[in-house]
Amino acid sequence: MKLIAGSPGTWSGMALRVSQFVFAAASICAMVTAFGNSNYSAFFYMTFTMMLQLFWSLGLAFVDIFSIRNKKDLHDRATVTLIVLGDWILAVFVFSGVSAAASVMILFAKDMNFCRVYWKLACGQFALSIVLASIVWLLDAASSFSVFWLLVSFY
Amino acid sequence: MKLIAGSPGTWSGMALRVSQFVFAAASICAMVTAFGNSNYSAFFYMTFTMMLQLFWSLGLAFVDIFSIRNKKDLHDRATVTLIVLGDWILAVFVFSGVSAAASVMILFAKDMNFCRVYWKLACGQFALSIVLASIVWLLDAASSFSVFWLLVSFY
Repeated sequence: MKLIAGSPGTWSGMALRVSQFVFAAASICAMVTAFGNSNYSAFFYMTFTMMLQLFWSLGLAFVDIFSIRNKKDLHDRATVTLIVLGDWILAVFVFSGVSAAASVMILFAKDMNFCRVYWKLACGQFALSIVLASIVWLLDAASSFSVFWLLVSFY
Repeated sequence: MKLIAGSPGTWSGMALRVSQFVFAAASICAMVTAFGNSNYSAFFYMTFTMMLQLFWSLGLAFVDIFSIRNKKDLHDRATVTLIVLGDWILAVFVFSGVSAAASVMILFAKDMNFCRVYWKLACGQFALSIVLASIVWLLDAASSFSVFWLLVSFY
């Protein structure tokens, strides 16, 4: 088994998955407790991609723990291809969700001054949730590239 | 010289670059002639990424024409790496621009009913520009993968 940092079945890979899970959960919490979030499709879409990320990262964290405990080698071509596909598709979804929510946030805060006029709108919490989601995307990119590198090393 | 469809220095590659250029130009025209576009950061950002795409595609189309006319082989590792990097970075920018503009468009049309209330706002033109930009992104993805495939074949 090759030891590529962040690949499935390693401690660093598990740490990446757990941090993705934690940040995604924090982002969802910040969003769903914010006043007025349900009126805007972009925020709903970002929360939806964060949900997908949550389940995916949780599942893979369990797979990593199982693999470390039982010393099972996950580095066969089929498993790695599956994980690469899932990671890349999720990363694209999460990136589009973050861009969408961030652009609506900029519209509210800068272009339309909504945040100052409607002071009940929880702009701070929206912004926090978007920042957490972009951290999730960065962690996602890290694990995507690490697993992709592993896949390339098979050929 | 390997003949991978869409790679630099081939007719199909040039066709891809020219269509990227044409759709990006159309998207910019639709956006800058739309009433009210200058008030919204997301639309400005998308137009900016389309501008970058315009110059990049035009430049590479000229390189392709030069390479086809003079039968010059562009498939050395340094050139291909440069083109891959440029293509991927641009594709990420264009994708974020399209997501941002599309989410603002959905906010206007669906969440806030702006398009019906402020009938002077050129929502049809915004939507047209965003659709053209997403076509540019699809063409971009096609040429990115084709050049990436060429790069992988060197190793």
